[in-house]
Order: sequence, then structure tokens, then C-alpha cells
Amino acid sequence: MKCLVFFVAAVLVASQCHGASFRSFPLSMTTGYGDGASDTEVRCASWRLAVEAQNIFGFETIPQQCVDATANYIEGGQYRSDSKTVNQQIYFFARDRHVHENDVILFNIDGTALSNIPYYSQHGYGSEKFDSERYDEEFVNKGEAPALPETLKNYNKLVSLGYKIIFLSGRLKDKKAVTEANLKKAGYNTWEKLILKDLSNSAENVVEYKTAERAKLVQEGYRIVGNVGDQWNDLKGENRAIRSFKLPNPMYYTK
Amino acid sequence: MKCLVFFVAAVLVASQCHGASFRSFPLSMTTGYGDGASDTEVRCASWRLAVEAQNIFGFETIPQQCVDATANYIEGGQYRSDSKTVNQQIYFFARDRHVHENDVILFNIDGTALSNIPYYSQHGYGSEKFDSERYDEEFVNKGEAPALPETLKNYNKLVSLGYKIIFLSGRLKDKKAVTEANLKKAGYNTWEKLILKDLSNSAENVVEYKTAERAKLVQEGYRIVGNVGDQWNDLKGENRAIRSFKLPNPMYYTK
Repeated sequence: MKCLVFFVAAVLVASQCHGASFRSFPLSMTTGYGDGASDTEVRCASWRLAVEAQNIFGFETIPQQCVDATANYIEGGQYRSDSKTVNQQIYFFARDRHVHENDVILFNIDGTALSNIPYYSQHGYGSEKFDSERYDEEFVNKGEAPALPETLKNYNKLVSLGYKIIFLSGRLKDKKAVTEANLKKAGYNTWEKLILKDLSNSAENVVEYKTAERAKLVQEGYRIVGNVGDQWNDLKGENRAIRSFKLPNPMYYTK
Repeated sequence: MKCLVFFVAAVLVASQCHGASFRSFPLSMTTGYGDGASDTEVRCASWRLAVEAQNIFGFETIPQQCVDATANYIEGGQYRSDSKTVNQQIYFFARDRHVHENDVILFNIDGTALSNIPYYSQHGYGSEKFDSERYDEEFVNKGEAPALPETLKNYNKLVSLGYKIIFLSGRLKDKKAVTEANLKKAGYNTWEKLILKDLSNSAENVVEYKTAERAKLVQEGYRIVGNVGDQWNDLKGENRAIRSFKLPNPMYYTK
């Protein structure tokens, strides 16, 4: 406790963190929080919160000053706790409903069902500009992504409640086999559909693509009860779920 | 840094924090984050993040186990840093636009322009059920609320950029005089309008009320460039601003 008090009592120095979406304040704002060791940690926690609350978006990389703080967040336990907390809310919401035959819960894959931390931990936790070819080569095509543990636990509970699971991913259709194999290897044993993106629409943005796919599901008679993603763009647009859930992701922003 | 690593490396014990919207997981999920002193801090930080990302809402009180963590967050510096970060984003957005004559930026008052921490610090940081009469008597009617410092600094910058400021508050019209006096005393010296709620509509929920008021502003020819609130319900509904900004508030949820 003392430890935290000391940590959050850090001085904030303007322009400590900056990046595409986190520029320093033009006029330095003195904050007078007293002396402290961890002003960068505090400022990077603020950056992270602003990303999760949609106050900051569209960034290509995280602030360079926040690499260590992001690593600490991801590897230290807070990220796992945050992921668990959101999954708990999904479960409570789903459990308290009467489940109908065509009730589905949508899950995004990368960063939601499957953890891509093994990749990002090797690439600066989001401080390197995203390279899709490298991501496919070093991560997707290997098919060895572990489950995000809290999502997998929740997935099993949702399946046992009777919900149909649909994976809706921005991965392209040529990744179908490796994605199916990876999901099974990670412990996702059953799903109603695995929806991937047509190669011809590879440029389509996430909101347009996922909104259109949700519309098709509704037309097919499914009721989208929940939608789970680590990117706001997984959740925005029309044909939304009855309730959408945002898993934490401080490492990247998907357009 | 070591301090933070130690802090976030805390064990997470299921059902540590619970409340109206933060029930413990039915089956205890072991997390295996290793030993640590601050599992409650970690879980309460997760609760706070889930509130800011709209994964948790509708709560009447914060989890009782999170009173100390919330106090540390509010008083220790992280809350001020988080508030500053959002205000920076508002400023950068506003600064990068060509300002038209009828461009307005809306500010909520309590928890946004004026800080109600002096009240909540005396009432368990949101762990006591909200008592509107007591809030009016002990806080609103005294007219001595300080500005949220980061909001005031930003307000002055926005005024100097040429934006019109409109305060849109859920306070009732019988608080007009004390609210005007408090805003001026806190340093908010100019505004285009101060919109308060009709006593006859006192039961109307925040989203309906603020959506209707935003519609009137649009009809009057204003362009709502920005909307700033500490509650998602300040920002939801139709007639949204070009961009909405969510200031942190881990202490309460306004229906």
C-alpha cells in the first residue's frame, strides 16, 4: 500500500510521454504532486486509460517512453486482472439471461481469444510500427498462439450456458486452416462460425467489415447477445450486440 | 520502477472486490501472478478501468474493498494525471481545427468543470449511496467547489482559441445563482450559456435530458465541436459532438 501511495504520488512533468496521439502540453502545466520516482509510469498509465476510454485513438505506435510501463502492465499482472474483470462482466451478463437457440456471442480473435503478446513482447509492446507481413510470418502462420487465459475460461462457461460462439476476425480467409488449428490447439474446441475477411476486401476497415458481417448474422436469424473485442473498432458501427465488451489492449490500435 | 513491478506482480484473489456491478467469479479463477502485497489495489484498478471503458456501469456504490484504492487514485496523483491527459486531447483536437463563430464546446459541471472531490472525500469516495439532498446541502449550495484544475487550464485555452463554452449540467434551475457564482469563483469567467434542468423534469435521465438540450443547441445554429463529461451518460445519445471526451470518474455512476 505504501508502495502504491509512493508510486502514484509521483511528480508529473509535462511532455514526458508523447507520440502520435499523446503530444506534450504546449504550455507546461505544473502539477505539484510532490517528489516521486515514477512520473513516467503515471503518465503512461494515463495514456493507457485514455486509449481504453477512447480519448486517444488512431495511434500507430505507443509512446516510446511507455515501453517499460507497457511491459510492466502486460507482464506484471494488471493486464491479466483487467482481462479477467471484463470477462467476469461478460459472464454475469450472459448468465443472467434466458438463452435462446440462436443467441450468439461474438469474439474477435487476435488480442481477444488468442493472445498475441508472444509477438508484441518481441516487438517493443507496440512501440514498433505494425508490419502485417512480419506478423503473419512470425505469429499467425505458426499457429501456436496461446489463448488469452481469462477469455478461454469465460468461453467455456458461455458454451456451457448454451450460447453459440462465433469468431469474427480481421484475418484473411487464406488463414482459415491455420486459424482453426490454432484455436483448437489453444483450447477453443467448438464454434458456430469462424468468419474471416475476403482477400478482395483486405483494405476494408474493421468497422465496415465487422458491421457488414454482423448484419449478415442478424439476417440469418442469429441474435447477437454479446460482442467481445480488444479494439473499439470491433464493437462500433451498426448491428451492435445487445451488449459489447472492450478487453484491454494498450499495445496497438486497429483501423 | 521496482516498486511498480512489485505492485503489479500482486496475487489476484477471486472475489476480492465485489459490488453491485463487480461480483466475484462463480468459480474461483486462480491467476498465479506470484506473491504480492497489493492484490486489492490491482483488482480495484481493474474495476476502475472497466468503469472508464463502459464494461461496468449502473453501480450505486463503488466496491467497499476499493475505498482505499480509490482514495489513493484520487489523492495520489494518478487521477490528476488522467484528467490532464484527457484535457490535453481536447485541446489538441480543438487547436487543430478552424474555429467558426458558432463552434461550441460543452462542459458538464460536477466532476468535470468543478471538482466534487471535497464532498466525496468526506463520503467514502463513492462507497456511500448518493444522497442528493445531502449533496446539495453540503456541496452545491455552499458554492465553494474548486475547479478541476486541468479542466480550468484547458477551458482558458479553448476560450483563447475562440470557442464558445456552454455548461450543460444536471443541476436543477433553482441552483442557477449559486452555480453561476461558484463557476466564477472557481475561475470560469465567461460562458455562452449555462443550461440547467427544469424542476419539472427532475426525474428525466441524463441521456434524455442532455440529448434534448444538444438538439436545441443545434437548432439554434451552434455547432457542437466537443462535449466533455466525466459520465458516459453526458456523452451518449443523439446530437453528439464532433468528438466527445470522457474525463475519469471512479467514484459514481449517474443514471
